[in-house]
Amino acid sequence: MTVTTPRIRLTPEQRREQLLDLGVQMLATRSLEELSIDRLAEAAGISRGLLYHYFGGKQGFYEAVVQRAADDLYAQTEPPAEGDQLERLLASMAAYVDYVAANRAGYSSLVRAAAGGNEALRAIYDTTFAALAERFFAEDPAGELLPDTPANRTLVRAWQAMAEELTLTWCADPTVMSRDELLRVLAGSLPAMIEIL
Amino acid sequence: MTVTTPRIRLTPEQRREQLLDLGVQMLATRSLEELSIDRLAEAAGISRGLLYHYFGGKQGFYEAVVQRAADDLYAQTEPPAEGDQLERLLASMAAYVDYVAANRAGYSSLVRAAAGGNEALRAIYDTTFAALAERFFAEDPAGELLPDTPANRTLVRAWQAMAEELTLTWCADPTVMSRDELLRVLAGSLPAMIEIL
Repeated sequence: MTVTTPRIRLTPEQRREQLLDLGVQMLATRSLEELSIDRLAEAAGISRGLLYHYFGGKQGFYEAVVQRAADDLYAQTEPPAEGDQLERLLASMAAYVDYVAANRAGYSSLVRAAAGGNEALRAIYDTTFAALAERFFAEDPAGELLPDTPANRTLVRAWQAMAEELTLTWCADPTVMSRDELLRVLAGSLPAMIEIL
Repeated sequence: MTVTTPRIRLTPEQRREQLLDLGVQMLATRSLEELSIDRLAEAAGISRGLLYHYFGGKQGFYEAVVQRAADDLYAQTEPPAEGDQLERLLASMAAYVDYVAANRAGYSSLVRAAAGGNEALRAIYDTTFAALAERFFAEDPAGELLPDTPANRTLVRAWQAMAEELTLTWCADPTVMSRDELLRVLAGSLPAMIEIL
């Protein structure tokens, strides 16, 4: 048996996962535009051509990375199983704020790309926020906080736009209010809007 | 004295105004992308080249039209001089809803263009919404509704994002809630957010 430097051979699936992990890591501190395929391929120890091979090109890779980041956001904001609606909403919003704070550059660029008309990224963005909104209705079967009506669905969507803007602004300058104040506004404004209606 | 078909000769300034008016009219029911320079020049009875001459090209014309539309929005949402803060806010929001309803295609495309990274349009958008936000602080010197603090300025900006999303959604499908309900949420949510903070 010969001793060699262990060069790990990854299966195609493992390689894909590795590349997505690297992409999501890089996206935390870089915008989509700044995500360098060359640097990423180098970090993974493969060629740019092989990276494209796994994802069908640059755009395919970007979409896969953004989808992975969106899945992470969804998983990390899972509300706790226990507690009243408002407490659970508060916990979920805290996780959302932490996610955006840790991934601000990539998150901002996704918002811009989705709003600016990149259809594939817009679809990922819309699907993710629709799934986040769905939690309010799926996890509140008694409709205590939020009866499932077209009006309330519209309010949740508008509240999400507010929450995103407020969180991004706060992450850019956390001196404007305390984290507790931010969370109180994020979690309290939705019930307030519903009550006004 | 000979009788001729009256072909009105416009001064350059009048011509510019005419073209801007036509552009804003067309933008009411068309997106920026759908704004046809050819159709517009034809409607004004001039050549495409002359139109470009007045505005320094296609992008210059688009920017001038969007600036005019933004000025219209600002003027039309001027709050009434009388009434308490919430009443005046409500009146201003009603004018905002009416404006968006009457100019939905162009307004949506401006939001997309600004969010998507068109720098010139983004600047017009940002300046307009900053001016709209400024009203809260300039016209409420006693700070009854809204003391002028960084936190409140951040809340106004986030509330504007909510108001825009809610208004665009409602204009696309006015059956989700009544106009009165919409206005109540728009005007009531800002004071509610401030109170939560």
